[in-house]
Amino acid sequence: MADQTNYRRQFLGKALKGATVAAAASPFGAPAVHAAKTIRWKMVTTWPKNFPGVGTGANYLAELIEKLTNKKLQVKVYGAGELVPALGAFDAVSRGTAEMGHGASYYWKGKHEAAQFFAAVPFGLNAQEMNGWLYYGGGQKLWDELYGGFGLKPFPAGNTGVQMGGWFNKEIKTVDSFKGLKMRMPGLGGEVLRRLGATVVTLPGGEIFQSLKSGAIDASEWIGPYNDLAFGLHKAAKYYYWPGWHEPGATLECFVNQKALAALPSDMRAAVEVACEATNQNILAESTARSSDALQTLIEKHKVQLKEFSSEVLMKIGATSKTVVEEIAQKDAFSKKTYASFDAFRKKSMTWGKIAEQGYSLARQKVFGVK
Amino acid sequence: MADQTNYRRQFLGKALKGATVAAAASPFGAPAVHAAKTIRWKMVTTWPKNFPGVGTGANYLAELIEKLTNKKLQVKVYGAGELVPALGAFDAVSRGTAEMGHGASYYWKGKHEAAQFFAAVPFGLNAQEMNGWLYYGGGQKLWDELYGGFGLKPFPAGNTGVQMGGWFNKEIKTVDSFKGLKMRMPGLGGEVLRRLGATVVTLPGGEIFQSLKSGAIDASEWIGPYNDLAFGLHKAAKYYYWPGWHEPGATLECFVNQKALAALPSDMRAAVEVACEATNQNILAESTARSSDALQTLIEKHKVQLKEFSSEVLMKIGATSKTVVEEIAQKDAFSKKTYASFDAFRKKSMTWGKIAEQGYSLARQKVFGVK
Repeated sequence: MADQTNYRRQFLGKALKGATVAAAASPFGAPAVHAAKTIRWKMVTTWPKNFPGVGTGANYLAELIEKLTNKKLQVKVYGAGELVPALGAFDAVSRGTAEMGHGASYYWKGKHEAAQFFAAVPFGLNAQEMNGWLYYGGGQKLWDELYGGFGLKPFPAGNTGVQMGGWFNKEIKTVDSFKGLKMRMPGLGGEVLRRLGATVVTLPGGEIFQSLKSGAIDASEWIGPYNDLAFGLHKAAKYYYWPGWHEPGATLECFVNQKALAALPSDMRAAVEVACEATNQNILAESTARSSDALQTLIEKHKVQLKEFSSEVLMKIGATSKTVVEEIAQKDAFSKKTYASFDAFRKKSMTWGKIAEQGYSLARQKVFGVK
Repeated sequence: MADQTNYRRQFLGKALKGATVAAAASPFGAPAVHAAKTIRWKMVTTWPKNFPGVGTGANYLAELIEKLTNKKLQVKVYGAGELVPALGAFDAVSRGTAEMGHGASYYWKGKHEAAQFFAAVPFGLNAQEMNGWLYYGGGQKLWDELYGGFGLKPFPAGNTGVQMGGWFNKEIKTVDSFKGLKMRMPGLGGEVLRRLGATVVTLPGGEIFQSLKSGAIDASEWIGPYNDLAFGLHKAAKYYYWPGWHEPGATLECFVNQKALAALPSDMRAAVEVACEATNQNILAESTARSSDALQTLIEKHKVQLKEFSSEVLMKIGATSKTVVEEIAQKDAFSKKTYASFDAFRKKSMTWGKIAEQGYSLARQKVFGVK
């Protein structure tokens, strides 16, 4: 904090000189308050530039910061591959090549496997619960500890809500249907299916359609109705399975270089923090609204066949998921305490959710006769 | 907008003079950028000062605005009755006695019955869906139209999530159990129960405990586990019913005097807007985390008997709710179009919610064997 006070004094001293000069030069005596030196930041993202939902969400975050600071803090957003590759974003911000990044923490499992708890794990927390855990349940403190080791400060900055279980050209009648199934499924969800006998493949989003269409793969998950419809996946696969057990509320993140953040005057620092919290809410609202629209289109216009995973399949996937997630908890002390915090929050969330969100949702479904 | 440009010029001109004087006076040449004239706003609220969740949420909103503006915009929060009575907040901000307010739009049904759609109606949208509707489904535009008639700009600024169905000293075995039941239940929920034969009473929160304890009333709703536990309601009633069909995701609001908002420089205006969006997310996160904690305490420590309304009771309440809510839609053109928008969003949200949030929640419950 001492460093920052010094920085602040210098910063404000310079700003004052700027203001005085501007006043002398302007016939209107106008742009004084905001004559402070403009700060320019780079935001690297793991998304294609302007990608619907997540990429546009990163743009929204940058816009909020600029509006809040009257463009004294300017944030230029880079799509994946523009400044660094998608999966180079974390390192780029850690070393200061860019001041901030937007992504999802499960991409950084190579840095630490426990990073995945701050995005999504199979049968983990939904969006509303993730926010409860992060802001009021101890999650943020753990996340700070993990990212602090890399010189980064993380913020929740978006959520997809519950995703879909994926597009399939073969029905999943029992858990044996996964045996030999070639499916695109990343992360822990992929590991679960691999243990159930699937051949799990890695493919970038842009290659899913062609691979499904040609039969090179039998199945693929992507995101949810909004993004899946945009990719035309309904033209490449027969069945659309639910629920998305592997990503029940994928939390997007903003990670900021700690030194860059500390060097900001306090109001700009607040702009970054508060813009992240607003973006966190906004992306989920967009995903909720647009997915419900897209699902209508998929059902009514494209006559997509929705299929629910059977209880037997879910129980088997669930048991394997438990094993896979608990294995992370065994790796080291940090993973152990993070899992313990996450699992305790999940336990009480399930009790509350059953009578609150889920209880209400089922009651309303009954009353309206939703099929 | 022309007025605002003039205002801005004057404002900045004055600020500059302030800065120059400060520079001459200060041995450090320091506080220049933020020497602009401080603006002081009053926020009137419908909550008791510092009331957990909603009152502290209003404080959070004020703190964010001050942090974002480096205290150039100062917001003093008034609890209910401090400056104006709780239900005088809307008028106070409309006439400019205070610049902003924090409440819930169903309190203003006396201004227009359709106001209730922007907070909560029986069997309406849950928190996540309300945000989808308001930010991306046309809800905000309708809300702006309604409040614009009173010189106000509304923002979503908090959510309780699904509430509880209430505390009862008599079991609700069939819908006939409501006949003659003396229950504290405000708003549309109260109207529904009145039509089912209940004697609906109005009581401020602070009088619920004593009235239940003494038998003056048989039942009362309040909010949810977090606030209900704080009031000690478990010591005054036997049964805790779910789900809270009457308030499935009560949206809290910030309403701002339009002229006061337009007179702000653009960065301060953004501070108000973005702080509202962040507060919207934050209060829901707090409610989710603290209610799950409080429910554990109620169950494990206080051995509270949770009861689910039966299907038969829910179907009857649901049918009456439909009638009551649709009656609002018949009142005038604005109510009609608001209901149409809300109802269309609810319809597609139920289809999506069934396979997304609800579908996942049920699958997880099965896997973890939640009772």
